Amino acid sequence: MDYFSESLKLHERIRGKLETVTRVAVNTRDDLSLAYSPGVAEPCRAIAKDPSLADKLTLKGRTVAVISDGSAVLGLGNIGPMAGLPVMEGKCVLFKEFAGVDAFPLVLSTQDTEEIIATVKAVAPTFWGINLEDISAPRCFEIEERLKAELDIPVMHDDQHGTAIVALAGLYNAMKVTGKKLEEIRVVVNGPGAAGNATIRLFHRAGVRHIVACDSKGALSKNRADLDPAKTKLLEITNLENRDGTLKEMLMGADVFVGLSQPNLLNRADIATMAKDAIVFAMANPTPEIMPDEARAGGAAIVATGRSDFPNQINNVLAFPGIFKGVLESWKKKITEEMKLAVAKALAEYVGEPTVERIIPDPLDKKVALTVAEAVKACQ
Amino acid sequence: MDYFSESLKLHERIRGKLETVTRVAVNTRDDLSLAYSPGVAEPCRAIAKDPSLADKLTLKGRTVAVISDGSAVLGLGNIGPMAGLPVMEGKCVLFKEFAGVDAFPLVLSTQDTEEIIATVKAVAPTFWGINLEDISAPRCFEIEERLKAELDIPVMHDDQHGTAIVALAGLYNAMKVTGKKLEEIRVVVNGPGAAGNATIRLFHRAGVRHIVACDSKGALSKNRADLDPAKTKLLEITNLENRDGTLKEMLMGADVFVGLSQPNLLNRADIATMAKDAIVFAMANPTPEIMPDEARAGGAAIVATGRSDFPNQINNVLAFPGIFKGVLESWKKKITEEMKLAVAKALAEYVGEPTVERIIPDPLDKKVALTVAEAVKACQ
Repeated sequence: MDYFSESLKLHERIRGKLETVTRVAVNTRDDLSLAYSPGVAEPCRAIAKDPSLADKLTLKGRTVAVISDGSAVLGLGNIGPMAGLPVMEGKCVLFKEFAGVDAFPLVLSTQDTEEIIATVKAVAPTFWGINLEDISAPRCFEIEERLKAELDIPVMHDDQHGTAIVALAGLYNAMKVTGKKLEEIRVVVNGPGAAGNATIRLFHRAGVRHIVACDSKGALSKNRADLDPAKTKLLEITNLENRDGTLKEMLMGADVFVGLSQPNLLNRADIATMAKDAIVFAMANPTPEIMPDEARAGGAAIVATGRSDFPNQINNVLAFPGIFKGVLESWKKKITEEMKLAVAKALAEYVGEPTVERIIPDPLDKKVALTVAEAVKACQ
Repeated sequence: MDYFSESLKLHERIRGKLETVTRVAVNTRDDLSLAYSPGVAEPCRAIAKDPSLADKLTLKGRTVAVISDGSAVLGLGNIGPMAGLPVMEGKCVLFKEFAGVDAFPLVLSTQDTEEIIATVKAVAPTFWGINLEDISAPRCFEIEERLKAELDIPVMHDDQHGTAIVALAGLYNAMKVTGKKLEEIRVVVNGPGAAGNATIRLFHRAGVRHIVACDSKGALSKNRADLDPAKTKLLEITNLENRDGTLKEMLMGADVFVGLSQPNLLNRADIATMAKDAIVFAMANPTPEIMPDEARAGGAAIVATGRSDFPNQINNVLAFPGIFKGVLESWKKKITEEMKLAVAKALAEYVGEPTVERIIPDPLDKKVALTVAEAVKACQ
């Protein structure tokens, strides 16, 4: 199937993948008087007296906003808010289909950090959670941090943490399959943008000690004068040996390659320089840093990608629907680091006995979200 | 039925009157690839190339935002955004139930004019229309004017214009029933807030020459030093004789009373001072300025209220769903003055042969929105 032309046809036919429907009929005078004036005054008064009742009496208690400025949409780059809307709608579809969570997309006409923060804060009373989406680095870091600090509802930039959590789940099982140990492996992460940054941080928090981050100019090290603040901050937990060199030089002897970068950067010869039983997470989308066959030809024991047409799809749909379902159902006000680790562990365990072809659950398995939600609820 | 306690129970049971549902199933790999990655890239690219395609490929082309700051909710006053949410949801329900228009509520954590304007502009790319709601006067005037000027999608503050349009429809038919003439009648409008201001302007535009506006201190006149800019501006088209006096003094000899103010201000003796075949639109909610029986006892020929339990309910549900349906279906980018007059005329004509008990259509008649939409579409 030509997904591109078929998807365009689908979108032309249905004109938006989401619809708002009513949970009450309005056919009689009584219907109107209960759903609207004058009866609606009573839930209004109840919430005015106790604002927390909004969670129980309105859609606020079960609705997440999917918010983007269209600055880093899929692999398409800065295509703007309206062009990003099909993705945000798609995300909302996944929230509903995979976790029963209502979600509504909001695409913004501004890409200014302060204006985005102000806008999200302004609309926040309507929602019980904020899923930030496809906002480019490094602005996404400040936007998420500020909103987490300044709002009293859960906020998560999924491009960062969704990917990081599912990648960590895959890493847990890759350890099991290869017999390697988290504390000992050498990891190279190429592409320290939104997802790369969060993946590095989560891997580190999970116990990985040796991580080198690379950008298009090679390893991030203290010798580099061209690093922005987000990259500089990564040096606190990466490249502790302060090595310099290209991505390919860093790969030599490494156990794990994590790519969140560009298509076709590597070939089998590069993989062959890695340690035995190399683990390759080539997540550039839609074309990975190296195709699975090529990586295996170079000696990779385990290959994961972002694609649905190969085994081991690292797809954040495994994480975000269940995470928001979990915080919603337990009225948690933050998505914590503890939760992210717990979800990664739960996803890894969900697999049962992992194999080289199955280190993460099937993204289409709708029971996964239940497991994820339970893991979230069990957290403090 | 006790609408208040029953409405609270309803809201507790359904936890929000709106739900976002998906128009695509996601059960297979192909489903996921079409609704989301990788296929969704194609509609994204199409919109990036031609932003107007967002109208056809996303929910933008059929969705209205109902936006409030919670500063003037129903008759409840400034109860804040979350307490206003049940009303905004109710409004969205009416959009969908009466006109098939998708609508989503956004309640804002700010009541600052500039911040509201900035927020609405920031979220505007998601929507094809903005229904402002329950924003207090006089801020609502500037907010609506600015957004109309600065956005390229239809914007309407329904508290102003919805009420004004339906009241004008009633006035047209009241003229027919009583044999009075628009150009000759003397109208007193009490309560020059959001709805009162718009009603005065629309009546004037429709041809009413003699209007006196009153606030709690009596007639607005050039002799008053305490008028805010919005009230001062009304003097350009009201009280051309520059009379001073109380509401009751102004009522003497008047043909029409329009109340958008406070409960129980008038009694039968006041109505008796009005001209023969007086027309009383007592729209304070839920308790009118004078009850219909009392007004008739004072000699009123026609009485309308905002209530569903009396004849002639002036309910803006007769206008807003069809107005937005009309602009949406004809891709009009503005809601114009011409449209408001056309809708009032269409509503009046919809009644057929008006009587004292039927000067406006039944608010529950769902065919009305079709007529209203056609009237809008027929405008330039």
